[in-house]
Amino acid sequence: MPLWKIYHPVGAFTAEDKHAFAHKITKLYGMLPKFYVDVIFQEIPSDSFYIGGEPAGAFIRVSIEHIARTLSDDQKAWWLELTNEAIAPFVKDRGFNWEFHIDETPFDLWSVQGYRPPPADSEDEKRWARENKPSPRTHS
Amino acid sequence: MPLWKIYHPVGAFTAEDKHAFAHKITKLYGMLPKFYVDVIFQEIPSDSFYIGGEPAGAFIRVSIEHIARTLSDDQKAWWLELTNEAIAPFVKDRGFNWEFHIDETPFDLWSVQGYRPPPADSEDEKRWARENKPSPRTHS
Amino acid sequence: MPLWKIYHPVGAFTAEDKHAFAHKITKLYGMLPKFYVDVIFQEIPSDSFYIGGEPAGAFIRVSIEHIARTLSDDQKAWWLELTNEAIAPFVKDRGFNWEFHIDETPFDLWSVQGYRPPPADSEDEKRWARENKPSPRTHS
Repeated sequence: MPLWKIYHPVGAFTAEDKHAFAHKITKLYGMLPKFYVDVIFQEIPSDSFYIGGEPAGAFIRVSIEHIARTLSDDQKAWWLELTNEAIAPFVKDRGFNWEFHIDETPFDLWSVQGYRPPPADSEDEKRWARENKPSPRTHS
Repeated sequence: MPLWKIYHPVGAFTAEDKHAFAHKITKLYGMLPKFYVDVIFQEIPSDSFYIGGEPAGAFIRVSIEHIARTLSDDQKAWWLELTNEAIAPFVKDRGFNWEFHIDETPFDLWSVQGYRPPPADSEDEKRWARENKPSPRTHS
Repeated sequence: MPLWKIYHPVGAFTAEDKHAFAHKITKLYGMLPKFYVDVIFQEIPSDSFYIGGEPAGAFIRVSIEHIARTLSDDQKAWWLELTNEAIAPFVKDRGFNWEFHIDETPFDLWSVQGYRPPPADSEDEKRWARENKPSPRTHS
């Protein structure tokens, strides 16, 4: 469900950094089957990345789509804070500037390995989480 | 309208594959002017693509935006199935794992070649489909 | 807030072009703090970019996300026109075909440099605009 796209300067992260960062993001979504968490890192050359009309420099822009869950109004500030904490070691603590936003897209327009994912917190979702892979539903 | 972004491992598709895949996607949207269907393939290096915190491997992630049409609730499961069928020869049948989701974005915030696209199934849309290019509206 | 992704043919723009284009986009959003305007240029190889199942050729596809503001219904046509005017020198006037769409994503799921951006037209937003950087809110 969450699809993270992390736009970053060339060379900002090593392969090990990216692996660790993706692992950290996956832990942030501990309530979900792990394999729901997709992370794509994309290097943006310095002459292709601008903020306010000027080269973005040491800036990381994260674009997040949530599909499996919708945040209620009173969860939103809390979730932004959790997200900022989760990414800090890879972003703030390394001296990068950063920005992120989350979009929420329709649960019913989502398909994993040909399956429609089971409802939130259902028995089937728990099984998907346990087995860390999609499979036919066993509950209606 | 539909904008497909296909994130895939390096070397997953030849130029011929991509052409055929884009053609197949265009046929899926046979109710629309062909030129509404935009497909972007993007190679993701193996150290930049993660699922559940681990390298994604033989995984294809498709991100789809629909603009010209909105699916009604009773069309959604059917459309997901059609989409899975359309992509199977390029994805499932080649041994890739895959996931896709669709977002629906506002029709009224869309512009093609400087024109606002005509309403769904209107005379103007039929003409755009016939001519396979945008042009000024001839109906209000 | 606005995040622009500009998908373009390889070599369509020089670094100077991109800088000037990003500057023009920032001016389009003159009501916002400049640093809200993020622009990412992405080259798409000719064998990875399709319209209607055929190679896209001299085509530029712009994908825009608005976060800080929501357009009212009677502003939409006007805003599309302003956008078309702003990009024309870099797109239409150079002989490219083009298409863009805007999605509006939730204001409350947005974080800049660890801060939640202040409400539209608030004193804090005016200060952020003046200082061209985020900082703690001084008004509730």
